[in-house]
Amino acid sequence: MSRVRERIKELGWELPALSAAAGNYVPGVLHNGVLYISGKADQAVRGRLGAEVPFADGYAAARAALLQCLAAAEAVLGDLDRVERVLQLRGFVNCTPEFPDHPQVMNGASDALVAIFGEHGRHARTTIGAMLPGGVAVEVDVTLAVR
Amino acid sequence: MSRVRERIKELGWELPALSAAAGNYVPGVLHNGVLYISGKADQAVRGRLGAEVPFADGYAAARAALLQCLAAAEAVLGDLDRVERVLQLRGFVNCTPEFPDHPQVMNGASDALVAIFGEHGRHARTTIGAMLPGGVAVEVDVTLAVR
Amino acid sequence: MSRVRERIKELGWELPALSAAAGNYVPGVLHNGVLYISGKADQAVRGRLGAEVPFADGYAAARAALLQCLAAAEAVLGDLDRVERVLQLRGFVNCTPEFPDHPQVMNGASDALVAIFGEHGRHARTTIGAMLPGGVAVEVDVTLAVR
Repeated sequence: MSRVRERIKELGWELPALSAAAGNYVPGVLHNGVLYISGKADQAVRGRLGAEVPFADGYAAARAALLQCLAAAEAVLGDLDRVERVLQLRGFVNCTPEFPDHPQVMNGASDALVAIFGEHGRHARTTIGAMLPGGVAVEVDVTLAVR
Repeated sequence: MSRVRERIKELGWELPALSAAAGNYVPGVLHNGVLYISGKADQAVRGRLGAEVPFADGYAAARAALLQCLAAAEAVLGDLDRVERVLQLRGFVNCTPEFPDHPQVMNGASDALVAIFGEHGRHARTTIGAMLPGGVAVEVDVTLAVR
Repeated sequence: MSRVRERIKELGWELPALSAAAGNYVPGVLHNGVLYISGKADQAVRGRLGAEVPFADGYAAARAALLQCLAAAEAVLGDLDRVERVLQLRGFVNCTPEFPDHPQVMNGASDALVAIFGEHGRHARTTIGAMLPGGVAVEVDVTLAVR
């Protein structure tokens, strides 16, 4: 088993089956050592932070979306041990206009990256509030340096 | 005529004249084989999906925005045959909070990329709902690998 | 003093102290000559364009956010003179659904980049309207080519 997969298991999480793309696109594209991963979401958590979705569910949905991104990365790479560094995460939070805590929600994804990859998981990040496909609560994409 | 231009014509579409930038930026920047294209929109289709803008108009606006992106790429590259691979598409849909079908709208852009570039047009994609400049219905940007 | 720092001073601006990250992420990640900078905002300007925030305050907030991005870049690079080219700027404007002038607001960041870096500051750009962490008015991130 790859070290990254093993680490995910140690943390009590599971790499999900790769979810189907919601449209005419692929899970990720690798070019010149950079892997661009498509936006992913936990389809089970729907609604807006600040309204129907409690904070803890949003945090968990951010982690689940990140694990979906890693499943997409594995589908492209064959083995997540090829990940050299997490370059960037973009996080999107479905929320009310008044909701202020997008960064804390998105830590669900960022904390998972650091727990899984250690120092190599530390990433640049941009988080915003948005309306999301199917009304999911959180969407995440990542860009990875790979060997 | 370049093969890509010819293919666009075969598909019954047309590469538009490069639209003026809406601000102090350039159509695209090429660095180390990667071409970053600015966000583009069809200025003729304004309003929100789920309200004033019917689905078919949104789908067409996504394709028109994508063709604007390709016009921007041609302005930088001189010839679209230099495109090696579409790496990533980011799609933004102006919509009501309840609108669920962002991915299907954005297929207007993705289907066009695959029709034009074939396997090399298959891309990573992130789609979200957003408020857009001038109230346009759809905005798209792309990142391309070029030779 | 670096030439870029000197130029910022000539323009009457100041590189701010690097703001703390709002979550578990780093100011920027450098990989293979490309520096990915995290989203930054002027925490002092909060509210929506088209409502509580006048246009001039939004324009100034875009410039302040950009200067925060450059402070983040300096923290990674040691010296902003290592910046070779601004590749891409992503701009997010907190606004009412009816607000049309996102591009003009975001010129606060783009005008600053061109004033500071000249031709090398000309960048690809995508601007959208979004809900933002803590209700800040403007958020910006940049991607830079560095030597």
